Amino acid sequence: MMNFESQFSANAKNMKQSVIRELLKLTVRPEIISFAGGLPAPETFPVEDLRAAANTVFDKHSAKAMQYGTTEGDNDLKDEIIKFETRQGVKLESQNLLVVSASQQALDMVAKIFLDPGDYVIAGRPTYVGAIQAIVSYSAKVLGIPFTPEQDGFDMDALVTKYDRAIAGGKKVKYIYVIPDFQNPAGFCWSLAKRQALLEFAYRRDLIIIEDSPYREIRFIGEHIPSIYLLDQNGQNRGIVVNLKTFSKILIPGARVGWIMAHEKLIAKFVIAKQAMDLCTNVFTQKWLAEYMKTGKLYDVIKSTCDNYREKRNHMVNALEKYMPKRWEIKWTKPEGGLFLWLSLPKFINTDDLIYKAVEEEKVAFVVGSAFYFDEPERNAMRLNFSFSSIDLIDEGIKRLARIITRELEAYEAGHRAKTAPEGV
Amino acid sequence: MMNFESQFSANAKNMKQSVIRELLKLTVRPEIISFAGGLPAPETFPVEDLRAAANTVFDKHSAKAMQYGTTEGDNDLKDEIIKFETRQGVKLESQNLLVVSASQQALDMVAKIFLDPGDYVIAGRPTYVGAIQAIVSYSAKVLGIPFTPEQDGFDMDALVTKYDRAIAGGKKVKYIYVIPDFQNPAGFCWSLAKRQALLEFAYRRDLIIIEDSPYREIRFIGEHIPSIYLLDQNGQNRGIVVNLKTFSKILIPGARVGWIMAHEKLIAKFVIAKQAMDLCTNVFTQKWLAEYMKTGKLYDVIKSTCDNYREKRNHMVNALEKYMPKRWEIKWTKPEGGLFLWLSLPKFINTDDLIYKAVEEEKVAFVVGSAFYFDEPERNAMRLNFSFSSIDLIDEGIKRLARIITRELEAYEAGHRAKTAPEGV
Repeated sequence: MMNFESQFSANAKNMKQSVIRELLKLTVRPEIISFAGGLPAPETFPVEDLRAAANTVFDKHSAKAMQYGTTEGDNDLKDEIIKFETRQGVKLESQNLLVVSASQQALDMVAKIFLDPGDYVIAGRPTYVGAIQAIVSYSAKVLGIPFTPEQDGFDMDALVTKYDRAIAGGKKVKYIYVIPDFQNPAGFCWSLAKRQALLEFAYRRDLIIIEDSPYREIRFIGEHIPSIYLLDQNGQNRGIVVNLKTFSKILIPGARVGWIMAHEKLIAKFVIAKQAMDLCTNVFTQKWLAEYMKTGKLYDVIKSTCDNYREKRNHMVNALEKYMPKRWEIKWTKPEGGLFLWLSLPKFINTDDLIYKAVEEEKVAFVVGSAFYFDEPERNAMRLNFSFSSIDLIDEGIKRLARIITRELEAYEAGHRAKTAPEGV
Repeated sequence: MMNFESQFSANAKNMKQSVIRELLKLTVRPEIISFAGGLPAPETFPVEDLRAAANTVFDKHSAKAMQYGTTEGDNDLKDEIIKFETRQGVKLESQNLLVVSASQQALDMVAKIFLDPGDYVIAGRPTYVGAIQAIVSYSAKVLGIPFTPEQDGFDMDALVTKYDRAIAGGKKVKYIYVIPDFQNPAGFCWSLAKRQALLEFAYRRDLIIIEDSPYREIRFIGEHIPSIYLLDQNGQNRGIVVNLKTFSKILIPGARVGWIMAHEKLIAKFVIAKQAMDLCTNVFTQKWLAEYMKTGKLYDVIKSTCDNYREKRNHMVNALEKYMPKRWEIKWTKPEGGLFLWLSLPKFINTDDLIYKAVEEEKVAFVVGSAFYFDEPERNAMRLNFSFSSIDLIDEGIKRLARIITRELEAYEAGHRAKTAPEGV
C-alpha cells in the first residue's frame, strides 16, 4: 500500500477539510431546521424562463454551445454582462472582463496568480471561508483585520497598525480581500467613507484590492453604495481593484458561472492561468445565460429575490427579538442585503460545542463562527442563513435556537452561583 | 500605474501564453483549412436527444439542478458513469469516483496535489500541451521520455536510465503522466506489454501513474487494450493509477464535465482541493448528462463518432500517401483511434517557421510539433487533426500542405546543390 501522504505537495498538506462541509453532513436529516447552508431560495429560480432560454440555445446555437469555447468567455454572454454592469454605472469593455466557473474559481485564480508560500492577504475577521481555503491552498496566510463596532468596514487604525507591523516584520502582503456588500458571514455593509478609505490605503501602499461582490445586487433595504471598483474607476482609475461577480446569488448557483472585472493586464494573466485550470467555462451554460439575459427578465428576478429575502430577513430578525434571552452580549446584525446574519453570544458560550447540542437536542443547525477565521477564532458567534428556509421554519428554528441558548445561560449561571455562593450556605 | 508583474507569484511568472492559442488566432480566417484545433466533429453531437434530456431536467429536477451541488459530484451522474465504466470491465464504486469540470481541471488538481516547485513529472516526448501547462503552473518540470520506434509506448530503457539519473541527481519525481490510448499529439497507442511494463516500473519505484484517457472509447480500428487502471485493478490492485476521463471527446466538449477514478484516499484529497477550486461542477449539466446517459444512446453516439473519425482518418492517411513527396524522413502515424496524427519531416524543415508560410501561402494550418515538448523540442514535426474538417477539406488541405512541403524540399535541395557544386562550374 503506497503512502500517498508522503507524495503530497506542501500546498496539499496545508489543505484542510472544511468544517462547514463536515457540519453540513450533520444537518441533512430532514427533521433538522438548517440555517447552516448558504443556499439561495429555490422559489426564486425562474425555471420556465430558463427552460425557454435553453431551448433557444438548442434552436440557434447548438453546434457552438456544445463545442469548445474561448478561455475569455462567450462573446454573447460578455455582451450581456457588459450591459448589466453598464446599467449599474460601471464602464466595462471586453478586455476587462473574464467569464469564470463561478467566484470560487476566481478566488483560486487570484490566489494562484499572486501568492507565493508564506505571503499574506489582508482580510476581515471574520471572512468568507472559501476565500481562506483558496489562500491556504497556496500555502499563504491571512492578516486578519477587525471590523468597527459600527460594522461599517475595517477598523482602519487596526489595518494601518497591523499592516505596518507586518511589513516591518518582513512579511509580504500581496492583496486585500473584502466583501463590501453584505459580507459573508456577518452581513456587514461597508459605508462609502470606509470604501474610499480602503481605496486610499491601497493607493498609498500600492496594493491590489480583490472586491468580492456575490451579493451586491441583493440589497433589499436602503440605497446602493458604489463598489470600490467603481470608486477607483470614477477616481484615480489606477486599475488596482479586481471585482468578482457571480450568477450564483442573483439567478442560480447550479450554473457555476461568474465573471471578473479587472485591468486588462490582469485579465490577460488570468486567461493564461485559466487555460491551465479548465480551458474554458461551460460553453452551453454561457450561451444559455446569455439567451436568458437577452429577455431582460434577470432584473425582475433580482427584484423578487430581494423582496423574498427582505421578508425572510425581517422574520428572522423579529423572531430573534421575540425569542432570544435578553442579555447585552446577545446581539445580531441586521443586514440590508445578502443571505446571512451573524449572532453573537456571551464569551462563555462556545458555538463549536453548542452546534452538537443544537442538532441533537433541538434539531436546529447553524455554522460555527470559528469557521470564518484564519487564526485566533472567535468562538462565541454563529452564521445564520435566512434565504433558504421558509418563513414558518425560520420562526420555529429561531425558537429552538433560543431554547438551547437559554439553557446554556441557565447552566452557566447555576454553575457561577454555585461557585460564588458563600461556603457552608 | 501599478507594476502588476512585480506582484505575481513565482508560479504565475512561469506560466506562458500557449503557442497553440496564439497559432489558433492565425487560423480563424474562413479561407484557412485548419488541422490545428482539437475539436470533435460537430455532426456527431446528438442535439435533439440532448435537448430532450435537458427538458427532462427542467421537468423533474429543476430545483436541484439549479442549486449548489456536492463537491464529489451528482449522484445520478455518478451512477451512470459507474454503469458506463462497469461495461468496460472496470470495478468502480462511488468513493473512487469524482466528477470534475473536464480533464483540464483534473490535470490542474493532480499538479496542485502532488507538485512542489522543482519537482518532476515523467511524461512522453511529445505529450499533451495542457498537461505541460498545468505542471509548469506549479513551477514543476517534466522529465521527457522518448517513445519506441514501434510507437507502442515509452522506450523503457530510456525511462529507467533517465529516472535513475534523475534520482541520483537529487531530483524528486512525483508521478508518471501518460495517454496510452491514441495519445495527443501523436496518436500512439500503447501495447499491452508496454502498459504492463510501465505498471511494473511504477510498482517498483513506488510511483503514481496519471493515466489520461480522453480518447479511450474513440477506437475505430482494432480491439480495445485494457487501461493501466484496469491492469492494476486486475493485478496487484495497489491503487496507484489515477484515471482521467471526459465527456469532451465521446459526447460534447461544451459541457466541460469529466471524471477521475482513483484510490479513495486520493479522491478524498482531490475533493478537498476541488472545494477551494470551484466548489462543485456545473450541477445543471451533471443532471443533464445523467438524463442523457439514462437513455442508453451514448453508446450509439460513440459508435457513430468512431465511424465518422475512421472515415476521416482514412481520407487523411490516403491523402498523405497520395500527395506528400516521397522521401524516407517524411512519415506519419496511422492511429487506430483518437483525433490526431503526427507528421514528421526532414530535420532541416522547422515547422515553427513553416506554419507562417503554410497559413500565408497555402491557407492551411497545423500545430507545430515543438508545442508538445517541455524542453529540447523536436522542430520537424506537426500535429494534424482529422476529426473536425469535412472529407473534402481534408483532401484539399493535405494537398496544400504537400505543396508547401515540396517547395521547402526543393528550396533546400537547390541550396544544397549550390553549396556542394564544384567551384567555378
